[in-house]
Amino acid sequence: MPQGETFYRAVSQVLFISQAYGLLPVSNIRALDIEQIRFKWLTPRVFYSAIIFMLNLIEFGAVLNRVISVGVTFHTSSSLALYIVCMLEHLFFWKLAFNWHSIMRHWYRVEQLFLSVPYRFYDEYNMKRRINIVVGLIMSSALVEHCLLLANSCHLSNLERTQCNINVSYLESIYKWERPHLYNILPYHIWLLPLLEWVNETIAYPRSFTDCFIMCIGIGLAARFHQLHRRIAAVHRKVMPAIFWTEVRHHYLALKRLVRLLDAAVAPLVLLAFGNNMSFICFQLFNSFKNIGVDLIVMLAFWYSLIFAIIRTALTIFVASSINDFERKIITALRDVPAKAWTTEVQRFSEQLGNDMTAISGNGFFYVTRQLVLSMATTIITYELMISDVINQAAIRQRTVYC
Amino acid sequence: MPQGETFYRAVSQVLFISQAYGLLPVSNIRALDIEQIRFKWLTPRVFYSAIIFMLNLIEFGAVLNRVISVGVTFHTSSSLALYIVCMLEHLFFWKLAFNWHSIMRHWYRVEQLFLSVPYRFYDEYNMKRRINIVVGLIMSSALVEHCLLLANSCHLSNLERTQCNINVSYLESIYKWERPHLYNILPYHIWLLPLLEWVNETIAYPRSFTDCFIMCIGIGLAARFHQLHRRIAAVHRKVMPAIFWTEVRHHYLALKRLVRLLDAAVAPLVLLAFGNNMSFICFQLFNSFKNIGVDLIVMLAFWYSLIFAIIRTALTIFVASSINDFERKIITALRDVPAKAWTTEVQRFSEQLGNDMTAISGNGFFYVTRQLVLSMATTIITYELMISDVINQAAIRQRTVYC
Amino acid sequence: MPQGETFYRAVSQVLFISQAYGLLPVSNIRALDIEQIRFKWLTPRVFYSAIIFMLNLIEFGAVLNRVISVGVTFHTSSSLALYIVCMLEHLFFWKLAFNWHSIMRHWYRVEQLFLSVPYRFYDEYNMKRRINIVVGLIMSSALVEHCLLLANSCHLSNLERTQCNINVSYLESIYKWERPHLYNILPYHIWLLPLLEWVNETIAYPRSFTDCFIMCIGIGLAARFHQLHRRIAAVHRKVMPAIFWTEVRHHYLALKRLVRLLDAAVAPLVLLAFGNNMSFICFQLFNSFKNIGVDLIVMLAFWYSLIFAIIRTALTIFVASSINDFERKIITALRDVPAKAWTTEVQRFSEQLGNDMTAISGNGFFYVTRQLVLSMATTIITYELMISDVINQAAIRQRTVYC
Amino acid sequence: MPQGETFYRAVSQVLFISQAYGLLPVSNIRALDIEQIRFKWLTPRVFYSAIIFMLNLIEFGAVLNRVISVGVTFHTSSSLALYIVCMLEHLFFWKLAFNWHSIMRHWYRVEQLFLSVPYRFYDEYNMKRRINIVVGLIMSSALVEHCLLLANSCHLSNLERTQCNINVSYLESIYKWERPHLYNILPYHIWLLPLLEWVNETIAYPRSFTDCFIMCIGIGLAARFHQLHRRIAAVHRKVMPAIFWTEVRHHYLALKRLVRLLDAAVAPLVLLAFGNNMSFICFQLFNSFKNIGVDLIVMLAFWYSLIFAIIRTALTIFVASSINDFERKIITALRDVPAKAWTTEVQRFSEQLGNDMTAISGNGFFYVTRQLVLSMATTIITYELMISDVINQAAIRQRTVYC
Repeated sequence: MPQGETFYRAVSQVLFISQAYGLLPVSNIRALDIEQIRFKWLTPRVFYSAIIFMLNLIEFGAVLNRVISVGVTFHTSSSLALYIVCMLEHLFFWKLAFNWHSIMRHWYRVEQLFLSVPYRFYDEYNMKRRINIVVGLIMSSALVEHCLLLANSCHLSNLERTQCNINVSYLESIYKWERPHLYNILPYHIWLLPLLEWVNETIAYPRSFTDCFIMCIGIGLAARFHQLHRRIAAVHRKVMPAIFWTEVRHHYLALKRLVRLLDAAVAPLVLLAFGNNMSFICFQLFNSFKNIGVDLIVMLAFWYSLIFAIIRTALTIFVASSINDFERKIITALRDVPAKAWTTEVQRFSEQLGNDMTAISGNGFFYVTRQLVLSMATTIITYELMISDVINQAAIRQRTVYC
Repeated sequence: MPQGETFYRAVSQVLFISQAYGLLPVSNIRALDIEQIRFKWLTPRVFYSAIIFMLNLIEFGAVLNRVISVGVTFHTSSSLALYIVCMLEHLFFWKLAFNWHSIMRHWYRVEQLFLSVPYRFYDEYNMKRRINIVVGLIMSSALVEHCLLLANSCHLSNLERTQCNINVSYLESIYKWERPHLYNILPYHIWLLPLLEWVNETIAYPRSFTDCFIMCIGIGLAARFHQLHRRIAAVHRKVMPAIFWTEVRHHYLALKRLVRLLDAAVAPLVLLAFGNNMSFICFQLFNSFKNIGVDLIVMLAFWYSLIFAIIRTALTIFVASSINDFERKIITALRDVPAKAWTTEVQRFSEQLGNDMTAISGNGFFYVTRQLVLSMATTIITYELMISDVINQAAIRQRTVYC
Repeated sequence: MPQGETFYRAVSQVLFISQAYGLLPVSNIRALDIEQIRFKWLTPRVFYSAIIFMLNLIEFGAVLNRVISVGVTFHTSSSLALYIVCMLEHLFFWKLAFNWHSIMRHWYRVEQLFLSVPYRFYDEYNMKRRINIVVGLIMSSALVEHCLLLANSCHLSNLERTQCNINVSYLESIYKWERPHLYNILPYHIWLLPLLEWVNETIAYPRSFTDCFIMCIGIGLAARFHQLHRRIAAVHRKVMPAIFWTEVRHHYLALKRLVRLLDAAVAPLVLLAFGNNMSFICFQLFNSFKNIGVDLIVMLAFWYSLIFAIIRTALTIFVASSINDFERKIITALRDVPAKAWTTEVQRFSEQLGNDMTAISGNGFFYVTRQLVLSMATTIITYELMISDVINQAAIRQRTVYC
Repeated sequence: MPQGETFYRAVSQVLFISQAYGLLPVSNIRALDIEQIRFKWLTPRVFYSAIIFMLNLIEFGAVLNRVISVGVTFHTSSSLALYIVCMLEHLFFWKLAFNWHSIMRHWYRVEQLFLSVPYRFYDEYNMKRRINIVVGLIMSSALVEHCLLLANSCHLSNLERTQCNINVSYLESIYKWERPHLYNILPYHIWLLPLLEWVNETIAYPRSFTDCFIMCIGIGLAARFHQLHRRIAAVHRKVMPAIFWTEVRHHYLALKRLVRLLDAAVAPLVLLAFGNNMSFICFQLFNSFKNIGVDLIVMLAFWYSLIFAIIRTALTIFVASSINDFERKIITALRDVPAKAWTTEVQRFSEQLGNDMTAISGNGFFYVTRQLVLSMATTIITYELMISDVINQAAIRQRTVYC
């Protein structure tokens, strides 16, 4: 790509990896030609994704079956919620896959403006590298989290086996611990373990990946707002002809249209991701005041998972709100336009920037800006304090008895 | 209607049906000529509505009498609130009936603008069909809810009769269960049942219908904003003469006046409907954590009623907020007006759209926009968590003993 | 005053009556000439107000003395708060008295604009009548409240006397009940009762009067905004010369300056009144769930006092927010200015109206607009639910034992 | 300085004193020449600050060690939080020291505008005196607080010694009481006491000083906004040439740039200070409902500390929000610009003032304006009410038993 990087290329590797977990089954996702990136029925990817979705659905059925027989408790309902969120995320990515071609084509056309001469010089944002760093960081941390939870399971199932003298092998005890809802339906076989572990991963993966995906969209859009800002900043205090401002404003309008298109496309994912992160943090913080056991590995898995969720959510907000930050920088730059160059066009531009909100918004329900961090934090603290009663009643930290 | 549909015609059927329940006793509601739609004293409709209101009043008196003798509890106060809300809704519809003629005439005059040449081509919103679908859907769901609650009553009263060996007939036991406040005053007669069931329905009907009515108003207004937006969208990026924008702005101002008129007219209904829906959802969610019995029919009636209330409220907000959505689309369209066509008129239009809020507002207390969903949800969750103490103390689900 | 009524005349009677309770000791408050309305040291009014303030201070000292010896409880701290609020109100009115002359002179000068030719025709707001009605209504309701509380005291003290066989006369038992903090210091004398009753009234009066005073200010300002709106409405859709709009805008700016001046002057009273009303409603609502006794007179006094506080607060907000309502009407009227008459002056006027907030604000801490009702209601409900625990623990309504 | 005072000179004494506590180790902080004020490695100040930071770090390690062995309780976690906040403040001041030279140079350059002819006449704000008064007031109150807490420690340790008959000297008992985490590691020596007292002070000092520092920044900026406002107020209603408004607007833009620069530089300190103040007030208010002992000195130390924190926080907000207050005054002054002088420049100025928010903001998370007082108060009251349960359970005030 001599002129710079396009978003569909920058994000191709990340999406290719996520296809291994059955998400976004678009054909030729790594193609150089944007016309080849299409959703096609009857391709191996779609087939593969469908199988994974089926397996998840079956497992969800088993969990549901168990919950009905055992009864709805705080713990089982949170486990059900996890499966429902995961399957909704699979569904929303599937829906996105249908429109992926048209979205990418629109994005590509807008990007052509920013890969041509005046903007090409301001292309130091390094979109692809940022995407890779952010996704690499988050997904490897998610892998560590997954391993910790797995080790936790192995450890606890083994404890249960030895303390209660259950006459099963080590691996079978893990199977029983991890899949209590399958244990009575599906007898234990050694070859079940890798398969179920894979299903497990396809369930755990989307939770972190949805945040990554929102960040990728945020970085891709911010790269263009960055270029726009740099172009305006480059003519700081210079008297530019009216045609310059008309052009800049038209490019800005094209970007706004792109933001609106993407906002509508990823809105269900944004709502799901933020809702899920917020409820997960609330739930884990609440658990942190209760008995979480005194084993080191249990503690480690628990706190790692909680802190990772907090950092991931904060990072998602910061990255996604950078669009808004660049827009505010553009407003500031416009204030310095000299009086001579202050035409109706600049005034319209300035007025529009002042009145309209440019941010990923979950379809208008809330805006992902920097202030969101504070309001989410306040809400979480408020909710924690509200359930502090239960905390007071169960504050004694005790060693869990497994049988 | 060759030029398109007018609101008073589109909504006539819906209002005609609701008159059967004693609401909005306006004469000739289905008349083709708007001058005939008038509130007249000494007509059968007014007489009929007055009788229904009297019957409700008498029943309310009986309930009040019983509450005073039994004492104010959580349950009796919620039953009182239901009657008060219902009677206020009857009263507010009555008050609306007085002004219905002048409101409809004003609306009709504004609509003439949108049924003439330039707008006629953009009349694909299909107001009447939307109104019929929405009202049909909600009111038939409300009917199902009513039947479930009735079946629930029959079931529970029968359980009580058989478990406690009360020596009354099946129908009398229903009468006693449903009308404990009348049982001691009015001896049981078989012909009382249909009459009381009818009174029951006139009490239950307004609760769902008020939401429907707000949605009808919302659809009626949105249809015109839609046409205005389509007209502006049709000249997208074209250089239009100043007279075009002056005309469009005047039509917009006429619509704004209409929105203000209707907002003032339906404000008490909006405040009552949202207040009632919110408190009902809070109350039922709170009950959901408590003992609600384990009978299938009780469970079904309870959850259906709760989920229906949530969906109905959300739908009301979405439909009513579509006015606001169209206005935001018009703002976006104005951003693309070319520099040559950017006159003072367009600037005034743009400025007004940016500064003023166009939405049904309950007389300025709150604005029915998309964000309302999130803030209502947050408030409901907060209130639920606050009363979680009581939940913890009464979390055991037990079989109700009826005697 | 042939041209209409001025505020200092309209409010003179109300302030004259309040001077009987020691508030706002300004000389010649009912003078026709504004130059005579001045604060003067060494006048009987100042002397009288100082004596009343001293008596309150002494009584507060006695209460404080008793609280220290008895210990700080929920009840005694609320009694202390009442005295502190009352004395702060006396102090703030005293401070206002110093500046009363300059405030009234500024107001008078602004009012001259609105009593001359163009506005004189639109003077149908009837400021004086509104002030008298509002104040009359509130203060007579406050009198009823005071009588009820007094009757309540007589009733309860008598109950205590008879039930516990305390050997004191009827009047002495009232003295003991009403002034437990004085009973041990000051022996009972028959002539003490009227004096203490008068002190009692000077303590109770400012609580309701502060709300009335804010409403008077609100009505006085709204009268002028009303005239401004009527003048603009009178030229609706007419093409007016630029000089007309310049004049109207200058009059608006004069009104804004007046609003700012008054906002700064009454800010402490506004903050105190709203804070006090809100905490009083919260406190009484909280008490309503607890044992309030089953005597009719106790119930009546309690509920009358609570409902009166709610209605008074709501009325204060509605009256004070009418300034804001008129401003919004002026914005709406400006939208209809024809394109020909749309000059820079009208644009400036429109922009200013759109951006600036005109409302009584408690010095910028919060704005008294219509939305305040909703946010106060939400806060009160939230606070009530938070302390619902205590309610659950003490929900049993029992007959109070007096000894 | 013949033309007036510069910020770096006005604040030099305050910063020089704070260097004694190891904060902001910049060389030549009191230099007349701004080029000499630089951060230099290998100077005594840096060395001294590093030693103090090391000592704090060691003490924190000891506390952490004790907390791990004793277990995390409500009390130990609050003690840990104190150390973490203090060390973060040391770190943030250190980071600020690196950039201090460039910040001060930028500020100095902006100040040159306001020390030259037109503004020099409006320089009655007296920045230096205000800084000295505010800092003097707060820091001497902080000293009183520190002494009270020390006296409290002496008193309590002595009580423990005498009541429990522990065989240690008076001074050793103080050492044991104040440093339980060091007592077992480091044997008692008489010369340890002054050293540890000094470390104690370097830990306590930054908590109050951070608020002072924010106030100094606020006063320094407000002084310039004040001059700008005075210059505009001086030409009130006069027709000024366009060049005047262009110049004023440019100076305003320069001030805005300065505010942004400082906001970014002190953002971590602002977030830390407000978060720490708010949690401290919540925590102490919560303690106030619990047993705080009945000794006079304990009560005095507790209430002084709480009231001082509330006043200090409120004062910080008031002083820091004065920037915003002056900006609002400038907007008001612009409304009175006569129609003849209303050029595009004034309009741009007015529009910018209306749309942009000028305030210290903690990097965009929240804005330090007057309304912050109300929202902080509401949040604190809400949080207090939420934990009112615990209060009810432990409301009995009892004499602490020390062994």
